[in-house]
Amino acid sequence: MSLARVGVVGAGLIGTSVGLALRRHGGRAPTVLVDADPARAAAAAALGAGVAGDWGQLGECTHVVVAVPPNSVVPVLTQLSSLDARITLSDTTSVKSEVLREVETIPALVSRFCGGHPIAGRERGGPGQALAELFDHAVWAITPPVGTSEDAVDDATALAQLCGARPMRVSAADHDAALAAVSHGPQVVASTLAADLVGAGPLAPVLAGAGFRDTTRVADADPALWTEILVGNASAVADAVDRVSAGLAVIAAALRRGDPDTVRAAIAAGNAARSLLPGKPSAPRAREWNRVGVVLADRPGELARLLGAAGEAGVNVEDISIEHAVDRPVGFVELAVDGAHVDDLLAAVRARGWAAHVVT
Amino acid sequence: MSLARVGVVGAGLIGTSVGLALRRHGGRAPTVLVDADPARAAAAAALGAGVAGDWGQLGECTHVVVAVPPNSVVPVLTQLSSLDARITLSDTTSVKSEVLREVETIPALVSRFCGGHPIAGRERGGPGQALAELFDHAVWAITPPVGTSEDAVDDATALAQLCGARPMRVSAADHDAALAAVSHGPQVVASTLAADLVGAGPLAPVLAGAGFRDTTRVADADPALWTEILVGNASAVADAVDRVSAGLAVIAAALRRGDPDTVRAAIAAGNAARSLLPGKPSAPRAREWNRVGVVLADRPGELARLLGAAGEAGVNVEDISIEHAVDRPVGFVELAVDGAHVDDLLAAVRARGWAAHVVT
Repeated sequence: MSLARVGVVGAGLIGTSVGLALRRHGGRAPTVLVDADPARAAAAAALGAGVAGDWGQLGECTHVVVAVPPNSVVPVLTQLSSLDARITLSDTTSVKSEVLREVETIPALVSRFCGGHPIAGRERGGPGQALAELFDHAVWAITPPVGTSEDAVDDATALAQLCGARPMRVSAADHDAALAAVSHGPQVVASTLAADLVGAGPLAPVLAGAGFRDTTRVADADPALWTEILVGNASAVADAVDRVSAGLAVIAAALRRGDPDTVRAAIAAGNAARSLLPGKPSAPRAREWNRVGVVLADRPGELARLLGAAGEAGVNVEDISIEHAVDRPVGFVELAVDGAHVDDLLAAVRARGWAAHVVT
Repeated sequence: MSLARVGVVGAGLIGTSVGLALRRHGGRAPTVLVDADPARAAAAAALGAGVAGDWGQLGECTHVVVAVPPNSVVPVLTQLSSLDARITLSDTTSVKSEVLREVETIPALVSRFCGGHPIAGRERGGPGQALAELFDHAVWAITPPVGTSEDAVDDATALAQLCGARPMRVSAADHDAALAAVSHGPQVVASTLAADLVGAGPLAPVLAGAGFRDTTRVADADPALWTEILVGNASAVADAVDRVSAGLAVIAAALRRGDPDTVRAAIAAGNAARSLLPGKPSAPRAREWNRVGVVLADRPGELARLLGAAGEAGVNVEDISIEHAVDRPVGFVELAVDGAHVDDLLAAVRARGWAAHVVT
């Protein structure tokens, strides 16, 4: 129909961020926010994502996007199928085939529905974590079901664009196979790897460094939500997990028989695969800066105090990078400055008691 | 003997950092830095880690620490065993049993040697990455061989302490089993998981988000170095890798037969294991601050400009946290400030064109 008035069902991180992102553009009535928990819709509205509403008010919308956990998507869509047939529908779920398969059996639904999945998120969920910019430059997968209408696909695509994302039309099967490899399978791997810590003895957590923490970070995931995602993409995830399981068995066998070539090839294969990831797009650096490394204690305000000291010394800091020493009260900061300011910065920083050095 | 004059063989990240850390304390001659590549020893010396020397000068040291790749440790130690018998020796290798087993067969060596392993590192290697503070508060495993002397153990322990680390005496077997679970095994898992991306089709890298990047970050590891580490701890690593492989096969089977309980239990087990990791020790927060979220473009100087704007507005920034949107030119920054300054900060930041909101 159009995006003149958008409704959102599910006022969590994604739904609230959609409302905030849409508000950046004019010519549109406030987004209607509906949640099974009215307090969440109210919180999202208070943050500026739209107006808290009820199911009835969704009938006044031109497009409704469903941003609820996987198992609730089809029930919610089914409920929405009683709305005016001109209202288009989309979703944001991270598993697409199952939703499409079910939607394709409901004629009143399929002609107005197009699947969507923004590849964006944050470590914590809920409306309070929402950001208008969450989807900026992110890929937003668009997966039309068989039997959908041009209108529905257009609106789902326009929603992604209005939210600042890059819509990418893909088949649900391709989407789910890719997500199994880069998200759902890795979730299972990280959880299983983390769980191995339990039987590894009391010394293991003490000797765990930054690598273990990074590799298992996503193992903090919510079991209820992730069970829905994994079971919803069960076949592709099982394939991905079995591939990794088999690959690990090959390397374990190589280690047992003393075959360094297979081990080396496995590490090299990981190198090669990582190089397939798109590079981080940064604005071109206007010039090369000199870098000064400073060691900070992990105390509130240390970084602000450091930059204050640089400012007092008349040094313009062009860029900052921070490397935390995980689990230790120390962090390594690099400040990029003009070469003419290096000595001033070193003197100012050292005078305040920090260790500082020129990074070569 | 003592740490009156320390020699370092291997002027990489670890060896150079040892030299820099020792320089923080008085009563000691400059550290003698030796490397198979004299340019690396010279670079470490230029950074202030000590004086570049040759093998002959190690004979003037009281303790020599070997910080070379795993397969070179025993050859280097064997060469050092011709030095004055009073000179104690230690190493920094991440696999301990094999080195100890070999050292224990060399009587001229075992009485003067004690193993060591600082649990500290950085993403990049080489002397240019070295830091005097690299080992501060880190665990430094101390693994004495059978037949060593009290002198050797004392010196290895004192070295860890002088470098700012916490020496922890453990058996080589316990150390290697723990490292297999939290470092060597996870390396194999991350590399194998990353490698699966190669066959996953052209869409997979495009749809890879922050979770995949974190889980596979260590897959950027150097194949030559890591093959030595993994083969050096082959049996324990194979056990750890086989455990993960078997765990993954169980979950894949559960997914295929539609058993959500097993899947949920696996994610929950990962949650529980992560909670075993020691918490990040932070200085107690003096009070609760209010938090303002700001969206920054990934451009040089954005953060410094933001903090400059806060300073001009008379707002004292107490703490900063940064969350990068991987692969997209945007980052989410939270500034902690006194509640009385929130409105001033919002106004100052928005006036300069940044999106800002109060974090709830």
